[in-house]
Amino acid sequence: MNIRKFENASQRRAALEAELKTSLKNTGHFSLDESMAASRNCENMIGVAQIPVGIAGPLKIDAKDYYIPLATTEGALVASISRGCKASTESGGVSVDVEKIGTTRGPVFIIENLKEKTILENFLKDNLAELKNIAKKSDSHLVLKKFDTAVFGHNFYIRFVFDAKDAMGMNMATIAAQEIADFIADKTKIKCLSISGNYCVDKKPSWLNFINGRGFKVWAEVLLAEKVLRGTLKTTAQKFYDVWLAKCMGGSALSGSMGFNAQFANTIAALFLATGQDPAHIVEGSMGITNAGIKNENLYVSVYLPSVMVGTVGGGTGLATQKEALSILGIAGGNEGKNAQSLAMIAGAAVLAGEISLLASLAQGSLVKAHKKLGRGQNS
Amino acid sequence: MNIRKFENASQRRAALEAELKTSLKNTGHFSLDESMAASRNCENMIGVAQIPVGIAGPLKIDAKDYYIPLATTEGALVASISRGCKASTESGGVSVDVEKIGTTRGPVFIIENLKEKTILENFLKDNLAELKNIAKKSDSHLVLKKFDTAVFGHNFYIRFVFDAKDAMGMNMATIAAQEIADFIADKTKIKCLSISGNYCVDKKPSWLNFINGRGFKVWAEVLLAEKVLRGTLKTTAQKFYDVWLAKCMGGSALSGSMGFNAQFANTIAALFLATGQDPAHIVEGSMGITNAGIKNENLYVSVYLPSVMVGTVGGGTGLATQKEALSILGIAGGNEGKNAQSLAMIAGAAVLAGEISLLASLAQGSLVKAHKKLGRGQNS
Amino acid sequence: MNIRKFENASQRRAALEAELKTSLKNTGHFSLDESMAASRNCENMIGVAQIPVGIAGPLKIDAKDYYIPLATTEGALVASISRGCKASTESGGVSVDVEKIGTTRGPVFIIENLKEKTILENFLKDNLAELKNIAKKSDSHLVLKKFDTAVFGHNFYIRFVFDAKDAMGMNMATIAAQEIADFIADKTKIKCLSISGNYCVDKKPSWLNFINGRGFKVWAEVLLAEKVLRGTLKTTAQKFYDVWLAKCMGGSALSGSMGFNAQFANTIAALFLATGQDPAHIVEGSMGITNAGIKNENLYVSVYLPSVMVGTVGGGTGLATQKEALSILGIAGGNEGKNAQSLAMIAGAAVLAGEISLLASLAQGSLVKAHKKLGRGQNS
Amino acid sequence: MNIRKFENASQRRAALEAELKTSLKNTGHFSLDESMAASRNCENMIGVAQIPVGIAGPLKIDAKDYYIPLATTEGALVASISRGCKASTESGGVSVDVEKIGTTRGPVFIIENLKEKTILENFLKDNLAELKNIAKKSDSHLVLKKFDTAVFGHNFYIRFVFDAKDAMGMNMATIAAQEIADFIADKTKIKCLSISGNYCVDKKPSWLNFINGRGFKVWAEVLLAEKVLRGTLKTTAQKFYDVWLAKCMGGSALSGSMGFNAQFANTIAALFLATGQDPAHIVEGSMGITNAGIKNENLYVSVYLPSVMVGTVGGGTGLATQKEALSILGIAGGNEGKNAQSLAMIAGAAVLAGEISLLASLAQGSLVKAHKKLGRGQNS
Repeated sequence: MNIRKFENASQRRAALEAELKTSLKNTGHFSLDESMAASRNCENMIGVAQIPVGIAGPLKIDAKDYYIPLATTEGALVASISRGCKASTESGGVSVDVEKIGTTRGPVFIIENLKEKTILENFLKDNLAELKNIAKKSDSHLVLKKFDTAVFGHNFYIRFVFDAKDAMGMNMATIAAQEIADFIADKTKIKCLSISGNYCVDKKPSWLNFINGRGFKVWAEVLLAEKVLRGTLKTTAQKFYDVWLAKCMGGSALSGSMGFNAQFANTIAALFLATGQDPAHIVEGSMGITNAGIKNENLYVSVYLPSVMVGTVGGGTGLATQKEALSILGIAGGNEGKNAQSLAMIAGAAVLAGEISLLASLAQGSLVKAHKKLGRGQNS
Repeated sequence: MNIRKFENASQRRAALEAELKTSLKNTGHFSLDESMAASRNCENMIGVAQIPVGIAGPLKIDAKDYYIPLATTEGALVASISRGCKASTESGGVSVDVEKIGTTRGPVFIIENLKEKTILENFLKDNLAELKNIAKKSDSHLVLKKFDTAVFGHNFYIRFVFDAKDAMGMNMATIAAQEIADFIADKTKIKCLSISGNYCVDKKPSWLNFINGRGFKVWAEVLLAEKVLRGTLKTTAQKFYDVWLAKCMGGSALSGSMGFNAQFANTIAALFLATGQDPAHIVEGSMGITNAGIKNENLYVSVYLPSVMVGTVGGGTGLATQKEALSILGIAGGNEGKNAQSLAMIAGAAVLAGEISLLASLAQGSLVKAHKKLGRGQNS
Repeated sequence: MNIRKFENASQRRAALEAELKTSLKNTGHFSLDESMAASRNCENMIGVAQIPVGIAGPLKIDAKDYYIPLATTEGALVASISRGCKASTESGGVSVDVEKIGTTRGPVFIIENLKEKTILENFLKDNLAELKNIAKKSDSHLVLKKFDTAVFGHNFYIRFVFDAKDAMGMNMATIAAQEIADFIADKTKIKCLSISGNYCVDKKPSWLNFINGRGFKVWAEVLLAEKVLRGTLKTTAQKFYDVWLAKCMGGSALSGSMGFNAQFANTIAALFLATGQDPAHIVEGSMGITNAGIKNENLYVSVYLPSVMVGTVGGGTGLATQKEALSILGIAGGNEGKNAQSLAMIAGAAVLAGEISLLASLAQGSLVKAHKKLGRGQNS
Repeated sequence: MNIRKFENASQRRAALEAELKTSLKNTGHFSLDESMAASRNCENMIGVAQIPVGIAGPLKIDAKDYYIPLATTEGALVASISRGCKASTESGGVSVDVEKIGTTRGPVFIIENLKEKTILENFLKDNLAELKNIAKKSDSHLVLKKFDTAVFGHNFYIRFVFDAKDAMGMNMATIAAQEIADFIADKTKIKCLSISGNYCVDKKPSWLNFINGRGFKVWAEVLLAEKVLRGTLKTTAQKFYDVWLAKCMGGSALSGSMGFNAQFANTIAALFLATGQDPAHIVEGSMGITNAGIKNENLYVSVYLPSVMVGTVGGGTGLATQKEALSILGIAGGNEGKNAQSLAMIAGAAVLAGEISLLASLAQGSLVKAHKKLGRGQNS
């Protein structure tokens, strides 16, 4: 059966139901504008996957309250993050620092030898202003910030770093990179082999993104009061600290991990799915470090996320349910880059809440008890 | 506002709409059994995120045709994977090899010194049969296969490896690990600090899982015929190979990546979301290696995925739309471990199709052209 | 000038001195048996590099005192390690746990497809006894312990793990691996591409060796008494701990390091050079983790080295000065594997002493002061 | 026995010989200026380790011939590198590109919270000129080039990058970093916890150094002519390429290595020991990538070394035999940074020669044959 021959989701479902003798009635229950989704978001569309959305919070971030929409199928996750939000908010709230790195795209060129390496390096340095112009012409919202280079035999990689305002911006960056690459190839006669050479690095765990950042670098912190540790989190600063050190530092070091944390991926996944982010960027969002430090009997907890790729326009953010989730956060649509930055901030704070709750639960030994009682469970 | 006080999704939506002056009507358009989803999959549920599902395929795997359900908001992804399915099927189909490693959980114990390290190691060796019994008692579907250990100061980590049949099995593994840990602590008087110490390693990029495997190790291969390369993929074996080497090997090595591939994460994310897998496991699914080799003018392409965590029962697999996606693949529900194994096999083959299409597109320089024309785009 | 045409070191020196108008009189000042060194250890020999050897210690290890010979050109290193020895010995001495993993060699075979992968895997399982026989025949001191496999496209890697008794054993392992590979190729008609495919992994930093071990895994621990911290080390448990956490854990995690330690490489380098080990194995010896934990006002410090490649026979261990260094430790020559094991033990304990001293110095802020005063310095 | 109480090497040897009933006569056979070595290079000195030095070459680098001094105890290594020199020189010689990154030192400060992070970042930006002045005042040969920062909880890391001219420069960098740190602490009242926080990163394998470089970044290339491949190297371009891909790329990727190469560590170790470099920097020198590409029937081979830490003044370079080795290369002593740069260049070219020879040998299957015949062996 040629799935591409049908005109719409309804026809495709009917054909699949007939051929496979299965029912797709729930897949067909949706309110999205199918023609828009089918043309912009998904080919051969047959309907939707419905993923439950819950609300964690309110979470006080830099003195303002947020309700965090989370799409998940893992029972206990929303409740867990919600508990972390409660503990954080009771302790005065989370502070966040966000640094925009930018969206990167890394084409690869073919050099004959090290002399051409030098020629290409010099060309890039000498023509940076023109490269910036090309980026701006390709999309008025796009700014080329800088570039880095690397070499593997005949392969010369250029990692262009763009500011794409409120868009996550991979498409804009790719289109601009192509026009810049065409210009470079035209002027230097050095050929572009591929518009992406994995020195971007898009959607793979990588130390390049961990160390030099991608999208946004985000830091979030909270000082958990002793009574909140005892009350809401049912643990102590010392117990929490011991588990943090054993798990996030020791276990992660021993296992060669890029995730020195408890469950970044769980929180990032739920927030990204609810708000229409590219789910493959959960990979980069899983990287990062959680830190804990005892202050008297209080506990300072902080997180660092090196590679938060988010946007509030484009991609899945325009779909009806995803847009509603962004509206719950008050950041749907474009706003001179401020909405994407806010989403990165919220991601950092939510991730912090998730870390707090899970580590407290592990410290108290209550994780399994809760899961058994509820017959379900979030893990990490 | 205390989001936890409401009785159901409808009330929560109404409250949020009133407080935030926003509309959530699409979020509220769903057919899932809300009471089931709210009790098993998502707390504080307010509705769903609707994620478009498209069909790629048919993809011939070990002589049988599959239609691959993919949930995505990234335009071009389904079309891209579909093209890879077409090229693979035209070339005679994909062969897959799957090795079940198992689900791991790694509690951490507190030893006083190296003498207690030896005591604990000996205890584990001497009591393996009893530990297996405890696992079996905790869940009749669960088998404790083996364990590994590691030490960081006073922290002694045990990585238990379980076979959970058709379940992804993190909850079953966690519950069993807790009972085993209780037994060990009781007998040795060596305390369990935390039921997870990140030597599992769950949902973080890690070399431990890359090297020793987790869930399933999957290999998939296809020999693309020259005429398919020229026709369907509009490239040549040599061009494809050059891009593969530059991107998947050179660029990934230079960037310190665990993903020596083009877009594992995109394909895994779309398949996992459609079929109700835990989206945080996209992280582990993004790890792995793509390989290409020219044979005359044909092209051998293969992929290796070290850490595929999937199941066909439990978690999100029981939700209505997700179950329908599994039914499209003919593997919904439990089947003595065979359905989960089939899903791992399909994941490997679909990932291979995704690699083929994107690398061919990059080799031909057509990626940007396609995206510009369609005003949309999948990336990596 | 053809350096290979001369008969001995003296002639080569003379020729170089004439051609380059330089003096090599110190290079020519040595007592090694030149004909032996020239035939076994170094081609085109012109003389020696003289590297100063100092003594650290005594260091009490498992109740016995050792003087540690260290070859170094970095001023302050011997003094630093010596201070760590003193502090450790004053605190009752170091305890060490050593696990022999074995010497590995990883040939790579060429398979046509995944079917041949299965064929080869089955052949290896079915013929393990015969492979062990071949290893034993190739060298009566060599035991094949086990093997692991991995696949990259057509490349099938087998990591053979050997016990080579008191030899570091790379040559024995390579020769045995060649004979085993010949046997496999003969029986299966699957060709061996290369006797080493970097799945060994020899002399490169790698997570494979970090996680699964190579040579010896070594753990060493000491409980530093409060008065020793205050007296000999001029710091406190808390100060030491803070620097350890910031440096060995935080800084190492942020920089994507395989060395969660202060100066493993310095200590390993000095001990390896003095005792005739292969200096390229310093690379593997630099991997590992230092841990610190406050116990009342005492401090528990421990180290874990996953990949200690040492021997007391073969290679550079037979050279006159190197043999004398081994004699100082009482472990020159072969002794049923016990001498190599002792050297691994001593390496772990010496490394621990080095960590203690440097971290204490950093904690006290005295590192620079000492270096400025002495006009010299060891670093890390 | 208190080894520190003796006045000189001779007394220490006599005492050890008496106590341990062992002979140290070869250790005592040296011509170094003991009082200088004992005061600058090695405490508790008892003599020297004599390490055989051989000569590889001549190796043509950018049209000039070099004889490469190599200190090693591993038989076959000098011969192997020498063969690579011959093949390279016969093919027209090696081209090298060197980029000076600089010597780094990374102190760690204690911040209270993210506000102090911002304060410290702003202070650094606003006072860069003054920081540069302090560096210059601490040593007139030292230039502070730039800095990077990173944060782990309360720990704020600054990675200062210095140009130390012909010195490897760790001591100068450490002293300057201390004075800069004192200034920062004085002005901001933010305390410096430790002068090194492993964000340097000194002597550990790390992606930070791999990606952003340390010391020198070096690229070296050669185009091996078909007749040289056939004649001197006894292999073909295709065979060489196949082994390179399987070993340096596939095997290294599968093992989570930072060394995508054949034997960087062997060559770097031998050159560093001969020329008085810090042997712990072999660790950083082992990182990097070898590349091969077939051009008709010729073979392009290149290497990339990201972290070459070398100098021609200071440390071990002033010792008699080491200085003679530098003289053989024509680069002993200071020369406005040019000598250290030349040594980095030579290191890159020699490493390339070592890769060529070993990979050719593996491709031909002759490695074991040669080792068995000679009863010795270099490995990797």
